[in-house]
Order: sequence, then C-alpha cells, then structure tokens
Amino acid sequence: MNKMIQFTIAGLLGLGIVTAAVAADITRPEEQILTRQAGYKFMAWNMGKIKANLAGDYNQQQVKAAANTIAAIANSGMGALYGPGTDKNIGTVETRAKADIFTDKEKVIELARQFVTAANQLAEIATNGDKDAVKQAFGQVGQSCKSCHDKFRAD
Amino acid sequence: MNKMIQFTIAGLLGLGIVTAAVAADITRPEEQILTRQAGYKFMAWNMGKIKANLAGDYNQQQVKAAANTIAAIANSGMGALYGPGTDKNIGTVETRAKADIFTDKEKVIELARQFVTAANQLAEIATNGDKDAVKQAFGQVGQSCKSCHDKFRAD
Repeated sequence: MNKMIQFTIAGLLGLGIVTAAVAADITRPEEQILTRQAGYKFMAWNMGKIKANLAGDYNQQQVKAAANTIAAIANSGMGALYGPGTDKNIGTVETRAKADIFTDKEKVIELARQFVTAANQLAEIATNGDKDAVKQAFGQVGQSCKSCHDKFRAD
Repeated sequence: MNKMIQFTIAGLLGLGIVTAAVAADITRPEEQILTRQAGYKFMAWNMGKIKANLAGDYNQQQVKAAANTIAAIANSGMGALYGPGTDKNIGTVETRAKADIFTDKEKVIELARQFVTAANQLAEIATNGDKDAVKQAFGQVGQSCKSCHDKFRAD
C-alpha cells in the first residue's frame, strides 16, 4: 500500500501537477502533440489487449505487461506535452484537445489523479492475476479514460 | 536478481519470442505499423528526458519514471506489431522496417533480448538514483537501440 502511494505521488509529479526540476526536453509544439498522441495510442493498444484477455483466454503475463505499460505511461509526465502552442492544429499535425484542458487546471488535476490512481491499481492487481479483480480495476481505468475524453477531447 | 530474471522472461514472452495465448488484437497492418511507431516515439521521448537529466540537474523521480516507461514498453509485446503486411508502406502509412526484420529471426531474438535486458537493468538502477550507474545503464540501452536501428531500420 505504501509502495502504491509513493507510486501515485510520483505519478502526480510526472503529470506536471507538482513542478519538476527538469522541463520538457521537447520544445517544438507539433512534436509535443505527436508525442502525447503516441502515448495515448500505445496505452489504447494495451487496453485492447487486456480487454481481449478478459473476453477470452486469460494470459496473466500478457495482462500484467499491458497493465504495467499503461501505468508507466500514466506516470511518465505527459503534462509536459501540453506546452504553449499545443492547443491548436499545426500544419498537418492535428489535435483534438479542447481549449479547457489548458485553462481548467482544477479539473485536469482531478481527472489526472483519478487516472494515475486507477492505472496504478490495475497494474498492482494484474500482478496477482485474479481475473475478476482485474476486470473491475480495468473498468475503472476505462471509466477514467472516458471521463477525460468527454470533458477535454473533441469528437 | 530473481525478480529481474522473471521480468526479462516476461519481456521475451512479450516480444513474441515465445508463443503467447492471445494474439495481437490489432489486425489491420497499417494500425500495427502506427502502433509500433507510437511505442518507439514514446520511448524516444523518455530516453531524451533521461539524457537531459544526466546532462543537467538530476531529478531522480523523473529518471525513474522515464526508465520505467521504457522498460514497460520494451516488455509490452511489440513483436505482435510486426504481423503480415506490415513490411511495406500502406497508403500514407510509411515504415522504415527493413525486410530482414521479418525473416532474420535469430538476429531479431538476439537484439530484442539485449534490449529488454538493458531496459530492465536501467529501470532497476534508476530506482536507486545513482547517477553514474544510471549513466552507464542508459548508455547500454542507447547502444541496444542503435544496434537494432543499424541492422533493421532504413535511413
């Protein structure tokens, strides 16, 4: 439990809620947009793998690896990829991020905290391989994804 | 040490070296290409963060989070994203993967094993935050990336 709390605090740090000593190394806004989209895409693939495992034969190693990947990306500091100039399309680089995500910091922090907590819980539970518990934790991560998409992502 | 070995075995499983029970949930080749590129792009961002930390002020939490992300992605089973039809450009989706990566399985296994081992070592060492040790482990991951790019990625 203590380990999980530490992990969560690291996650909030990572999401840029607490100031980190080193700023984003990527300065070009279009590169920030592409990199955050890469993170979401890779998480989505891993969510899909867990979903497939829950629906069919359950491969604990695969679910654990997928859940670890989602949690690691959630804790990787993607807040740094929402820098100035990343609120609009840049040439062929398009973003679906709504304006509110750059201004409504209170809601961003709330949803980010929920997401990091849910992702860490899923990773912890997936280690044991209890399919029913994983199913519930997976649902919470999915709900957390959806809450943020509904609020901050254009269709 | 034992934990690291287990982690590595899971990684090799993930990379598709050992048959997994659940196949890739993504069947469209263009989506497989885009997803593997997302994984590499997100790893590159995290490598960049570690490099910046080693060159400047060292933020242990950020380095640990970045190293965890690289290791988790390395262990996530990207081998499943090199399915049939992903060896060439598909419409606007371009790949730099050389033909050999789909045929030279012995070399792929060798380089994948080196990469997973190096990424796991970096994640383990980054937990302690010994900057010099991290620097060495980081160099080994970078060398492992380069070995694969030199062999299997077109310029």
